[in-house]
Amino acid sequence: MPIAELRLKPREDRRLRAGHLWVYSNELDLGKTPLTGVAPGSLCRIVDARGKPLGLGYVNPRTLLSARLLTGNAETRLDAAWFVRRMQAALALRARLYPDPFYRLLYGESDGVPGLVVDRYGDVCVAQIGTAGMEQLKPFVVEALQQVLKPRGIFFNNEMPVREQEGLTLYTESVGEVPDTVEIEEGGVRFEVPLKTGQKTGWFYDQRDNRDRLARYVAGKSVLDVYSYIGGWSLRALKQGATGATAVDSSAPALERAARNADLNGFKLETIKGQALDTLREMKAQHRKFDVVVVDPPALIKKKKDQEAGSAHYGAVNRAAMELLSPDGLLVSCSCSHHLEAEQLQRILLRESRAGGRRLQILEQGGPGPDHPVHPAIPETRYLKAFFCRVVQG
Amino acid sequence: MPIAELRLKPREDRRLRAGHLWVYSNELDLGKTPLTGVAPGSLCRIVDARGKPLGLGYVNPRTLLSARLLTGNAETRLDAAWFVRRMQAALALRARLYPDPFYRLLYGESDGVPGLVVDRYGDVCVAQIGTAGMEQLKPFVVEALQQVLKPRGIFFNNEMPVREQEGLTLYTESVGEVPDTVEIEEGGVRFEVPLKTGQKTGWFYDQRDNRDRLARYVAGKSVLDVYSYIGGWSLRALKQGATGATAVDSSAPALERAARNADLNGFKLETIKGQALDTLREMKAQHRKFDVVVVDPPALIKKKKDQEAGSAHYGAVNRAAMELLSPDGLLVSCSCSHHLEAEQLQRILLRESRAGGRRLQILEQGGPGPDHPVHPAIPETRYLKAFFCRVVQG
Repeated sequence: MPIAELRLKPREDRRLRAGHLWVYSNELDLGKTPLTGVAPGSLCRIVDARGKPLGLGYVNPRTLLSARLLTGNAETRLDAAWFVRRMQAALALRARLYPDPFYRLLYGESDGVPGLVVDRYGDVCVAQIGTAGMEQLKPFVVEALQQVLKPRGIFFNNEMPVREQEGLTLYTESVGEVPDTVEIEEGGVRFEVPLKTGQKTGWFYDQRDNRDRLARYVAGKSVLDVYSYIGGWSLRALKQGATGATAVDSSAPALERAARNADLNGFKLETIKGQALDTLREMKAQHRKFDVVVVDPPALIKKKKDQEAGSAHYGAVNRAAMELLSPDGLLVSCSCSHHLEAEQLQRILLRESRAGGRRLQILEQGGPGPDHPVHPAIPETRYLKAFFCRVVQG
Repeated sequence: MPIAELRLKPREDRRLRAGHLWVYSNELDLGKTPLTGVAPGSLCRIVDARGKPLGLGYVNPRTLLSARLLTGNAETRLDAAWFVRRMQAALALRARLYPDPFYRLLYGESDGVPGLVVDRYGDVCVAQIGTAGMEQLKPFVVEALQQVLKPRGIFFNNEMPVREQEGLTLYTESVGEVPDTVEIEEGGVRFEVPLKTGQKTGWFYDQRDNRDRLARYVAGKSVLDVYSYIGGWSLRALKQGATGATAVDSSAPALERAARNADLNGFKLETIKGQALDTLREMKAQHRKFDVVVVDPPALIKKKKDQEAGSAHYGAVNRAAMELLSPDGLLVSCSCSHHLEAEQLQRILLRESRAGGRRLQILEQGGPGPDHPVHPAIPETRYLKAFFCRVVQG
């Protein structure tokens, strides 16, 4: 079957030649290569305005982001063997970095597999496919994963709303044997992770390095973990020497799991169910204080149009968190909204600290860990920010 | 003696109220409060356009950056006791973070002491004063340091060219007993640091966390340390399990010290004297390869007007470094030029990798360590960037 050709307008090849992988619809010469009749997710050959090939990718006529480049070699066969090579390159990095098989194995564009994320939980993998193009290639993904890792099971957690824009249905699927939970270990702490009912793929590997960083700040301190999910920050802090930890989340199942994870490690964990902002304000009314407060919300800005409301929300929650800090406390403020740049979050933190008569020193600024490599041409791949802030009165 | 008053123009108080500490000459109402006759470095009361006090600072009529705020409380007495309080607040943080007395104790604006930097080397301190205002306050600085730390000696290394713009002379001065070298320990490695003849204050504490980060990348690997100075990166790498290390620097005394530091720890270190770019190109001609290359130059862009030439230099050196990497190697590329933003360095790395037919993954992005806190209103305080990049062929 001959694959479709996508021809770019003059000069619109520059971004791809500079390393980017995305083609927007307004960059296409639709007169020469119309998209009518092209099925969402089809493979395509991308060529510049003179017809010179730039590589192979996949196309979706439904989305403004029309095509993503898979390889700069237009002669490549995109099959299971191609995915095996991509996976082996990705695995080589992770195997060097991590003694145990717990990490993000494939991180979309950054690992040369646009639209695909795979997290590894020992002998089980959880995959998320975000594009019609990658959905078409799914049989190769499964075949390659089986060849490279021989996993007991692969779970496709394809329920992300973004799939609807691609014209894809939302579904989950188990290939092989997928347990409801797996146990992982991070920094000497055991966590039981819900693979099928948790957030995202079940665990947030992206924050591992930032949780490591907590070590030098929490010994002998009390820690509040806001948006705790299943207790990642709080249990790591207890292992690192915190004298007590409190987890706040709006999800009862997440908190139950956090409590069970505490038991699993012999830790005592206080859990409080509630919306973050309400709960923080109640705690203030109760005059509670903590030496360290971690604020690690889910993306509060999911779309560009939510920027204003989302920024206000980040501001309010961080302000409320600062008000619970003991003198000379530490605020760890995170955002995984790629629509909120690090500088913007820093401005919000500065503003809220000043409004409360406080002074901030940013001690560290963390990003995603190295199993989430940043693609230097694609800023969206650096979505995670974690500011470690000393908060001083006056 | 009544202190001078500096009145701002309408609305020019906003930046200070938002947390910044600097006042530029064009923000001053020179009609109401002329600077004629005001001595460089005098203390001043800064007031808004209505005469409402914003705090106390110091002024220099010679510089475009006319005044820096020391405190938002206009009733404060700026004396040794005030410096003692500032130092105790700074020390409280460092004492929590570091088991040993080796760190930057005071980091200028970020620690509320604009124009003053103090590094602590056990019982000896090295100070740098960058402004006429802080030079005036020097007796208080000495008195406060003696009160808080009781150091054996304080060395003022006031030879920074920036002092000339302030109308200050360049000089060094020992207060008490200052040895030529001190021994510090970092990550289990001993370093003899030249206090009087080294770069900056003698040691670069700002890179400590980034050198820590190297650990997971260098075990069993060969390491090239470009702009090695006295061997910080290379000796840390050897301790972290590197199989070999090569230090390149243009300074013979720095390399001699690096070699002595290697001996001190029982390590073998190859040293090569030469300009970075020339040396890297010679090594390429010799077909030498390294698994990890660290590029940590002094500020190649010292002034805004040097941006273009400096950026080209960063590009050339990083390109040459990439060409010495083994397949699937790691480039650690640093810049301490505050005129080169992190994004610009990233763009340079992307461009140079593409030009050489390579693919980059940014695994980590480090900044200065927490003894160099970032002032959230003053971007200049975040000058240090360190990109950990996986470099793959094709």
